[in-house]
Amino acid sequence: MSEASTRPKVVIVGGGFGGCAAAKGLKDAPVDVLVLDKTNHYVFQPLLYQVATAALAPTEITYPIRTILRKQKNATVWLAEVTGVDVNAKILSTAEGKTIPYDYLILACGARHSYFGRDDWEPLAPGLKTLGDALEMRQRFLMAFEEAEKCDDPALQQAWLTFVIVGGGPTGCELAGVLPEIAKKALRPDFRRVDLSKTRILLIENSPCILNAFPEDLAQHAQKDLQRLGVEVRNGVKVTDIRPDGVTLSSGEEIPARTVFWAAGNKAAPVGGSLGVPTDRAGRVVVERDLSIPGHPEVFVVGDMAQAALRDSSGEPVEGKLVPGVAQGAVQGGACAARNVIRRVNHHPTEPFKYQNLGDLAVLGRGAAIGNLPGLKLKGYPAWLFWLFVHVLKLVGYRNRLNVLLEWAYAYLTYQRGARLISNRKR
Amino acid sequence: MSEASTRPKVVIVGGGFGGCAAAKGLKDAPVDVLVLDKTNHYVFQPLLYQVATAALAPTEITYPIRTILRKQKNATVWLAEVTGVDVNAKILSTAEGKTIPYDYLILACGARHSYFGRDDWEPLAPGLKTLGDALEMRQRFLMAFEEAEKCDDPALQQAWLTFVIVGGGPTGCELAGVLPEIAKKALRPDFRRVDLSKTRILLIENSPCILNAFPEDLAQHAQKDLQRLGVEVRNGVKVTDIRPDGVTLSSGEEIPARTVFWAAGNKAAPVGGSLGVPTDRAGRVVVERDLSIPGHPEVFVVGDMAQAALRDSSGEPVEGKLVPGVAQGAVQGGACAARNVIRRVNHHPTEPFKYQNLGDLAVLGRGAAIGNLPGLKLKGYPAWLFWLFVHVLKLVGYRNRLNVLLEWAYAYLTYQRGARLISNRKR
Repeated sequence: MSEASTRPKVVIVGGGFGGCAAAKGLKDAPVDVLVLDKTNHYVFQPLLYQVATAALAPTEITYPIRTILRKQKNATVWLAEVTGVDVNAKILSTAEGKTIPYDYLILACGARHSYFGRDDWEPLAPGLKTLGDALEMRQRFLMAFEEAEKCDDPALQQAWLTFVIVGGGPTGCELAGVLPEIAKKALRPDFRRVDLSKTRILLIENSPCILNAFPEDLAQHAQKDLQRLGVEVRNGVKVTDIRPDGVTLSSGEEIPARTVFWAAGNKAAPVGGSLGVPTDRAGRVVVERDLSIPGHPEVFVVGDMAQAALRDSSGEPVEGKLVPGVAQGAVQGGACAARNVIRRVNHHPTEPFKYQNLGDLAVLGRGAAIGNLPGLKLKGYPAWLFWLFVHVLKLVGYRNRLNVLLEWAYAYLTYQRGARLISNRKR
Repeated sequence: MSEASTRPKVVIVGGGFGGCAAAKGLKDAPVDVLVLDKTNHYVFQPLLYQVATAALAPTEITYPIRTILRKQKNATVWLAEVTGVDVNAKILSTAEGKTIPYDYLILACGARHSYFGRDDWEPLAPGLKTLGDALEMRQRFLMAFEEAEKCDDPALQQAWLTFVIVGGGPTGCELAGVLPEIAKKALRPDFRRVDLSKTRILLIENSPCILNAFPEDLAQHAQKDLQRLGVEVRNGVKVTDIRPDGVTLSSGEEIPARTVFWAAGNKAAPVGGSLGVPTDRAGRVVVERDLSIPGHPEVFVVGDMAQAALRDSSGEPVEGKLVPGVAQGAVQGGACAARNVIRRVNHHPTEPFKYQNLGDLAVLGRGAAIGNLPGLKLKGYPAWLFWLFVHVLKLVGYRNRLNVLLEWAYAYLTYQRGARLISNRKR
């Protein structure tokens, strides 16, 4: 980006699904693009749970943002953490004290977890949004078996072998479904003193059935699949307490467990709060029909940070329905925001964001998945194969695709895991 | 390991080259083996510099220690950090407050860096011994280019583009040789504001020539190779100061540089100091001819922790020569200690440790290496191909070998790097 450029400057905050789609959408536009992210890499979030469970290495699901935009000559990438926006002065502030001016702004910073007012649970029950989260989860998961191996007290040993997952959405189900196989097949032969067939996986879901974004027959099928894989599903109960040594449920059940993972709620990235416009209960910015914010047509918010109404093909909102916080929502939102920036640069009216649901998928374990596609419901092996196909295809980089395919083939054939690495915390 | 076993208990501390060789050497022995390590993984140290330079992922050069010993039914593995040895009571103490008794002890804890009395340099100039070190180095190395890209001051930008490596042994040369290619070929197209062809790599070596463990003609050749690859070699000078903004040499030269790596000296793991026997200046335990320590024939020390005399084929020490601190020294030492444990269990006299040098190799960069093998000197492409062959062969796990071969083929053909991941420090 030339310093002396007089072209409009578009700043994109966040290099995930939404931010990268927005940057690519501006490829041929007469603008200068600056992409800011806290990290140097794009993360393929749908496979984070595979890093958390030691199936894939971090580098296999990530890609440098700069390399994604290498050929896009109007795009510059900076590693920076944005802490606030002054929408009147059109200036961003960063954690290292820099200020960055913009003509157009696209915010795509995603979400973190929500503990529904119990933030003290966060260290006890980490969630899964970033690569750092996945590595923390992998660490706890692998360490639990190490502690069980060293333990002489049978009750404590069982608590180390008990894993509680809070939240029965796609992430919770993916984690829960894969854990029994790892414990009972991949790791078991490596341990001498502890019998890993005693491993318990509990999935806690507030609703009557898991995966409630899916049609009920598919969700019921998924729940049976999980139970067949060895997961104990607790429906219709809430977690009322989390302690280092266990979990209490609203049913009164006490579960002694040393490892708890959180997959129950989202909270939008806090930078949306500095825009001075209304946000919803989950901290999402309530956006206009073109994804801009009220009063500032040059500021757009996309992906998990935005509360966008679901619209029909004519652009009218569908009563009470929102664009879901999934990858395709962010990608489509980012692309729409890019088109609207170009329209505004060209003094054309902006277009409304019409989310198109290409289908929902959830994977549960070896040979088990469900898919709700337009006009087609899939379950079992066909759904699982379709899931594999879509996820390999959507990875960035031919080498990542090849590596992931090899890892999966290896894991499928041998039941082994490729990334059983406990980082040395103290170094 | 059965709790009620009456077989002798052999505790091995350290799961690196020496410790794993010792454990495997006890495979069929009538003993119970307990391997203790701070981490859960064996690291193939000769390729650590490739993780530090973003060529390989951590999981590709590591392997779970438990999986290495999966089929060895007399071996148990615990994740524990040993803090001291009471050789009279035959008990180890660990960082978490446990005590572990032994009948025989094999210490193979390796070495850390020595800053020759300037421990304040450690945070400014990290070394390369563990996977944690390699990730810290990768982080600093990749972050330097990110900072240069954001920088508006030309002098500061050049300091971010200047890398100083202290120490011209194999590790220093490997790091120095690979950096110019990464900066000028792999990363350059991804940056917009900074010209990565301005990257400077300086290698500082106290001796008149680098790689002084090699014959002089080979070392001279290696030095010319490094210079051809773009490394500025400073011979016969010492580093007299390291600051966050640069390095001062004994020649008076001031080098403004934001990134300094240390490859200049070793210090044995501190646990050797608790044995109550003499250690040398580098903290190494001075061992007997059978690798046991004076007065305690049941305690053995191997690898970088031991100062062992080099012996000829008849077992007599070679005047003033020591077993070098290299992988093959640790592997052979571990195996010898295991044989001597078995001899003692069987009431046979122990054997002296006769180190056999299978050859030395150092790699400098694309197509450049030197090798000093028994009766054969190699340089250039043949040495480089031989280096590739040996290092892939010695990796643990077929899958790691395949992955590393694929990564190298990809890097060789495209000049790209597979593991450009800056971890998010704050998460």
